[in-house]
Amino acid sequence: MRTQVAIIGSGPAGLLLGQLLTRAGIDNIILDRASKDYILGRVRAGVLEEGTVRLLDQAGASARLHAEALPHDGFSLAFDGRNHRIDLFDLTDGKRVTVYGQTEMTRDLLQQREGSDAPAIHEAENVAIHDFDSEKPFVTFEKDGTTSRIDCDFIAGCDGFHGVSRRSVPEKSIRTFERTYPFGWLGVLAEVPPVAHELIYANHPRGFALCSMRSMTRSRYYVQCSLDDKVEDWSDDRFWDELRRRLPEEEAAAVTTGASFEKSIAPLRSFVAEPMRFGRLFLAGDAAHIVPPTGAKGLNLAASDVHYLFEGLRDYYADKSMAGLDDYSRRALLRVWKAVRFSWSMTMLMHRFPDTGEFGQKIQEAELDYLTHSRAASTALAENYVGLPF
Amino acid sequence: MRTQVAIIGSGPAGLLLGQLLTRAGIDNIILDRASKDYILGRVRAGVLEEGTVRLLDQAGASARLHAEALPHDGFSLAFDGRNHRIDLFDLTDGKRVTVYGQTEMTRDLLQQREGSDAPAIHEAENVAIHDFDSEKPFVTFEKDGTTSRIDCDFIAGCDGFHGVSRRSVPEKSIRTFERTYPFGWLGVLAEVPPVAHELIYANHPRGFALCSMRSMTRSRYYVQCSLDDKVEDWSDDRFWDELRRRLPEEEAAAVTTGASFEKSIAPLRSFVAEPMRFGRLFLAGDAAHIVPPTGAKGLNLAASDVHYLFEGLRDYYADKSMAGLDDYSRRALLRVWKAVRFSWSMTMLMHRFPDTGEFGQKIQEAELDYLTHSRAASTALAENYVGLPF
Repeated sequence: MRTQVAIIGSGPAGLLLGQLLTRAGIDNIILDRASKDYILGRVRAGVLEEGTVRLLDQAGASARLHAEALPHDGFSLAFDGRNHRIDLFDLTDGKRVTVYGQTEMTRDLLQQREGSDAPAIHEAENVAIHDFDSEKPFVTFEKDGTTSRIDCDFIAGCDGFHGVSRRSVPEKSIRTFERTYPFGWLGVLAEVPPVAHELIYANHPRGFALCSMRSMTRSRYYVQCSLDDKVEDWSDDRFWDELRRRLPEEEAAAVTTGASFEKSIAPLRSFVAEPMRFGRLFLAGDAAHIVPPTGAKGLNLAASDVHYLFEGLRDYYADKSMAGLDDYSRRALLRVWKAVRFSWSMTMLMHRFPDTGEFGQKIQEAELDYLTHSRAASTALAENYVGLPF
Repeated sequence: MRTQVAIIGSGPAGLLLGQLLTRAGIDNIILDRASKDYILGRVRAGVLEEGTVRLLDQAGASARLHAEALPHDGFSLAFDGRNHRIDLFDLTDGKRVTVYGQTEMTRDLLQQREGSDAPAIHEAENVAIHDFDSEKPFVTFEKDGTTSRIDCDFIAGCDGFHGVSRRSVPEKSIRTFERTYPFGWLGVLAEVPPVAHELIYANHPRGFALCSMRSMTRSRYYVQCSLDDKVEDWSDDRFWDELRRRLPEEEAAAVTTGASFEKSIAPLRSFVAEPMRFGRLFLAGDAAHIVPPTGAKGLNLAASDVHYLFEGLRDYYADKSMAGLDDYSRRALLRVWKAVRFSWSMTMLMHRFPDTGEFGQKIQEAELDYLTHSRAASTALAENYVGLPF
């Protein structure tokens, strides 16, 4: 097989890039070792920046989003027994975020893909990338017992943190930066209406909690937990009790409980690999960087990577200019580090750290107090939350 | 002896409080174990917030300040080889800071004191405070071989971090919060014109540097150094070389060097004692809290403490209301923690930390990049630097 761009990974980053390329008349093949069902079964966040929505528009995959998604003009920080609203719309001159499950976005993109002629190959085994430091890279994989080869101009590594793309780069060519956090998030999905119309991020002496949602009938809640905790330790009852204890009284009373249909514990990690381009291999999204979920930047960063990469590829095929591709890593990383910084700072602000000591705790309280009383500081928070410009 | 308010300490906090009280017709005696010469020989910072200048106006001790001090409309953050100006005046709707050596301010206040009838007793030995948890507190001290006693209504502890006031409070009645930093500041005073009209805070791979001044002919420079360093290790030549290496090229070339006439190494510390009131004893300034010098908040915090304390005392003597005094600790601490947070964050932002690792370093760089490119974030920095409202 021969294509112009081989895309490894059919998560949101790979699918979005594929659709943008297809619409621009650039041949591409998407390869994924997972099945479509697996991909659509993954539970992920879903707070989209306006730039991400615009990219979905551009990819022609936003019709259902515009019909069903929930626009949010603000969110709340809860601490010291009270709820402090951050008015995103007011603070950012009319910007907002859009709540739409990543699973739904992936479903829309997959459907769009299937309606086009561009191939997406799922359940591809032993995917390997080759010669990306030459002019003639190629990808091999096995499917149904047959080994295939795709020759291409470029490879887009959109296959996530554990994917083959980044792991194919020689160690000496890549620098990685990492920070782990001494706690996890216990998340629950339940078919109950959310406690509030907007998200609530709570900092409580017992730990962080987040009230989130996928729709007005499906809620997504989280509580900070120990990394030693097991999902089995957390009955639904225990979860709801703990969640309510961490919210201000009024909000706690308003929580609608119900049977959970998904419950999992995720560790928190900040990770960045530099650079994001190796010859003709370009990393995008989680393949190159991970942020803790506080602030909901992971998916949106994948989208901005795809935006820069798409622009570079479009310019290359339009007028053989490598300028955009040569600048991809620098441009993408500039925005990546801004979002990594924001996700880190919001994580530091909202969680209880077992090792910060009393001084650190007081600093956190002073920060929350300042943040919610200074328009400048609230604006800085808001402009990061709605997303810095691409 | 009998007075209404006994003030321990004749640094800026004690002298300022004394003058405000005297002008309001409230009797007070200032006691200090140090001599006037010692007090006027201490080298201290000198960036005054507008609120601090207003208090000096109110105390009638600002005539020379208005004639000689340097108003600053901005300062610079230098990193990555470039200077980024923070336009305080523009970002805060017309606020600025005033550069005037703390020594000069102390001299003005001492002179004012000497021109009044209010007593200031220097070189008082074995100062001790008594019965501050009763209605009848008193202070004892020795001078010229005689022990004296001052009966009073209230005691103001303005005697600094190492003073007797805070140490007189039973340990169980006080909570302290502390953070030390793994480096010191090596400071040099020299009779040379400053490198720039405004302050430059530099973050460089070799460490922090600060270009500051006392006047247009006297410069105050600092470089981050190891806590193990000795002043003797630092010849003037070595200091100037090191300073220039940490500045952007243009600024480095513009440094005028000369013989230093003061050189010292100071550790950096964040410290807060809570509460700031114990019966009829009130702590103000360094007696209750210490901030690292980054951001120049120490003197200004002492001034806001004095403002709150003066208001409380004035109300008490005007209409026997304890309301202001009862609320003193809460009001003062609210502002203290905001400044402690700011000083801590500016210290974290501008210094090289031996133990942060590469991730921490990248976060710092992302923070500097964001801060200097976002108007909201620059405004938050500026509003803290010029001083949050009393």
